[in-house]
Amino acid sequence: MSKGEQTRETILREALAQSSHVGLHGITVGMLAEKLQMSKSGLFAHFHSKEQLQTDVLEFAAEHFRRLVLLPALQQPRGLTRLTTLFERWLGWDGYAEFALPGGCIFITVAREYDDEPDGPVRDLIVRQQREWLTSIGIIVGGAIGEGQFAATTDPELFAHDLLGVMLGYHFAARLLRDQRATERARRGFGRLVREAAAGRDLDRPAATTADAVLT
Amino acid sequence: MSKGEQTRETILREALAQSSHVGLHGITVGMLAEKLQMSKSGLFAHFHSKEQLQTDVLEFAAEHFRRLVLLPALQQPRGLTRLTTLFERWLGWDGYAEFALPGGCIFITVAREYDDEPDGPVRDLIVRQQREWLTSIGIIVGGAIGEGQFAATTDPELFAHDLLGVMLGYHFAARLLRDQRATERARRGFGRLVREAAAGRDLDRPAATTADAVLT
Repeated sequence: MSKGEQTRETILREALAQSSHVGLHGITVGMLAEKLQMSKSGLFAHFHSKEQLQTDVLEFAAEHFRRLVLLPALQQPRGLTRLTTLFERWLGWDGYAEFALPGGCIFITVAREYDDEPDGPVRDLIVRQQREWLTSIGIIVGGAIGEGQFAATTDPELFAHDLLGVMLGYHFAARLLRDQRATERARRGFGRLVREAAAGRDLDRPAATTADAVLT
Repeated sequence: MSKGEQTRETILREALAQSSHVGLHGITVGMLAEKLQMSKSGLFAHFHSKEQLQTDVLEFAAEHFRRLVLLPALQQPRGLTRLTTLFERWLGWDGYAEFALPGGCIFITVAREYDDEPDGPVRDLIVRQQREWLTSIGIIVGGAIGEGQFAATTDPELFAHDLLGVMLGYHFAARLLRDQRATERARRGFGRLVREAAAGRDLDRPAATTADAVLT
């Protein structure tokens, strides 16, 4: 890695850590320069605009997420083992010692930060990253169907969304409520999705039968 | 309602709408005064500090949430009908015409905003409100057990957390991804929780059997 690349990575790492706390709007070149004892112009040599810094931080985070979560899963045998590894790595990804994010998962931070924003390069990238992640989960769920571990009626896209819901609930309980049982609950939620898919229950049923019966 | 109370409600309504966008840190007395064409000192007569304004906004939001979500549920017969009404009202609560929040559910906004913050009056109130809400859901789930609609082994606390996860996934899909199927997916998630509880499946099983088997 050249010196320029090293400097760039140092900046991105610090910007990512700060963003996990204050969001992508909250990071400033001034704060980064002060923390890293660099000049503002030195920073601007690496990132020509704040928007570029923001998108580069997101790409940098996604690269580490792939390395810490997706690749270890892909090294496991296709099917349930791979899916479970993905789940377990995802559950802890923002706390790995080598790469801890003080403000928690950056993707959850920016999801809330940008959900109201109009379209633009940063929001578009956030949405694209989330869609790609949901697609990746869906493909791994498809592997479990292919291995005969999940029923053929399993809807991989729905499974991926449901798993994301489990993970959002986990972060809410763990970080806001500081709930000691958050991890246990997330594992139960994952276990339930797995058992349902294995049994071929529910996933191919029409939606909202209960609610419709009650409310119409 | 006295004139003073009317003014106070006007201020709170505007502060809540702004908070749903920019969070509780983001609202300022200056912005409110300008929008409402009031003097800053006139505003400060109603709220002696920014912190008081923030907690009053949360109490105001909770009061409307109770009126729009919890009370309609409590007017329904105990059990599944009541639980389903609660779910359906919750799903749409931030969009009711009379009380639309331009930035979406205030409680999700502030959960993310305060999850990293140290303890303090605002964070403590947010956590207390969320715990109370989870307790209320649990009591209504208990009603469905009492009516014999849910298995006696159902864990109301776990059901409440799982339902919160469904709702967080819904907001993520609807607001960030602008996913047309978000409502349908949330209803399927709720329907699945209901069917599992009715069948007495899963909820009393030890956690993470699948993950443990794979990863240990």
